[in-house]
Amino acid sequence: MSEHPEGRTARFNFGQAESFVDLLSLDEIEQNIFRGTCHAGSPLRAFGGQVAAQALVAAGRTVTAERPVHSLHSYFLRPGRTTSPIIYLVDRVRDGRSFTTRRVTAVQHGETIFTLSASFKVPETTTEHQRAMPDVPRPEDLPDPFGGRRGKEREHYGASQTRLVMDMRFVPQDRQPATHLTDGVPHQRVWMKAAEQLPDDPLLHVCAMAYMSDLTLAGTAAAPHVTDPQNLQMASLDHAMWFHRPFRADEWLLFAQASPTAQDARGFAIGEFYDHEGVLVAHAVQEAVIRQH
Amino acid sequence: MSEHPEGRTARFNFGQAESFVDLLSLDEIEQNIFRGTCHAGSPLRAFGGQVAAQALVAAGRTVTAERPVHSLHSYFLRPGRTTSPIIYLVDRVRDGRSFTTRRVTAVQHGETIFTLSASFKVPETTTEHQRAMPDVPRPEDLPDPFGGRRGKEREHYGASQTRLVMDMRFVPQDRQPATHLTDGVPHQRVWMKAAEQLPDDPLLHVCAMAYMSDLTLAGTAAAPHVTDPQNLQMASLDHAMWFHRPFRADEWLLFAQASPTAQDARGFAIGEFYDHEGVLVAHAVQEAVIRQH
Repeated sequence: MSEHPEGRTARFNFGQAESFVDLLSLDEIEQNIFRGTCHAGSPLRAFGGQVAAQALVAAGRTVTAERPVHSLHSYFLRPGRTTSPIIYLVDRVRDGRSFTTRRVTAVQHGETIFTLSASFKVPETTTEHQRAMPDVPRPEDLPDPFGGRRGKEREHYGASQTRLVMDMRFVPQDRQPATHLTDGVPHQRVWMKAAEQLPDDPLLHVCAMAYMSDLTLAGTAAAPHVTDPQNLQMASLDHAMWFHRPFRADEWLLFAQASPTAQDARGFAIGEFYDHEGVLVAHAVQEAVIRQH
Repeated sequence: MSEHPEGRTARFNFGQAESFVDLLSLDEIEQNIFRGTCHAGSPLRAFGGQVAAQALVAAGRTVTAERPVHSLHSYFLRPGRTTSPIIYLVDRVRDGRSFTTRRVTAVQHGETIFTLSASFKVPETTTEHQRAMPDVPRPEDLPDPFGGRRGKEREHYGASQTRLVMDMRFVPQDRQPATHLTDGVPHQRVWMKAAEQLPDDPLLHVCAMAYMSDLTLAGTAAAPHVTDPQNLQMASLDHAMWFHRPFRADEWLLFAQASPTAQDARGFAIGEFYDHEGVLVAHAVQEAVIRQH
């Protein structure tokens, strides 16, 4: 039985989402079967980060809150459409002594568009280590691309659905061709957070991060290869995440990304998420198709 | 239909493997169904790298050689036993225009012990970038832990099954407590290759690397936390790989590993494979359970 049988309402946001919570909301059709709708990433194609985040919402709703998610692995198989709902089928692969495994198949019009496996675990306390946060400007010292405007006010800026619900601060030198390479490898550091406060449910914060983590990784890998932005094809191929420590997605998170390699029309990028106190909270790794036509 | 309907014989190596090829050999029971046997990693438990490698052999046998594998994502669900065969069931998830996706379920005694998804792609030529290989001693300048002995001669050294078929060269300072941390993070650089020449089949070289890549990642993450090696529990939780460029697994490969974080009895490690000319050929990323009792 689902641990969250009620308390969430179906929202078919074919129009604009009002908040981050709307982007992640699913309708429970039956035990282990959920329905959601996605906004566009590239034209006519559902934003992959939202599909991944909704699939993780579906998986998480079948697992007790005492076992937070610690990793996910996923493949994007076909473009998702934004004009009809996506059905998320959850397979309860294993409920073990300390680990729980779920697999989610996202289907639309009779075809599987996305698959995700995720693992959940009873927390333990052990000795630790972590990489130190890179030295970058604080978000409050970086320009706001929306000039401080919030929510629907941002429509005047031609903001995408994503940017209506998120705050972002880019480290300027990472976006300049002269300075975006470090040791020959493209880097991009971006501060991100939900524009509005989110409910305290930790699953929601993890799923919000899954959404955010698909926004800039492919672009980090593509940067040295873009000669004509109008004729650039980019699409996420896979997406893997590891959640190391608890965090809130409505407080600033530094997403420090690097692309160690690109070749064969495939760009590979690794991103580290740090909270505003420098705690390493997650990793995201992705390969994307990059074709400059 | 399998692209490799013949030419490989079943070998039940309950005893010792004679070569790397033996470790990866599968028996085809039916279309999309294969059978293999694995040697021990930790006592009574199949070595995860071999399970992953055999699962990739099974997936690859259902895909034309014109589409090499470019990535895999897998979860270890239950310990595999070494005393009976493992069955690999291949699901032909998708055969697309330029990508092919396969999912493999490894079962033993009625239970799923491991799942793997892999993606295969028609090669393309595009602009490239890659991280430069770290500056480490060449393998010929590092000590051979087996004193130049090959194959069965190594049994005198108490060598494991793995080490009967592989050559390894460790960078000494990465194994000393005083010098194994770089910027507070544990590192380990190891040169690896098959001890004997492998057939030219590229799938075999990729699967050999999958095997090798599970040998030292968890240990890299565990290094700062080991106080009593006799009471250390380590087990791979997942394993993801991305294959960037062609390589041979019977020529020296540098496996440059770092563990950005460990906490919650979980160690996380990222490894880069470079060939002996410094070409970045693959990445492996893994999370492992690490419990020091």
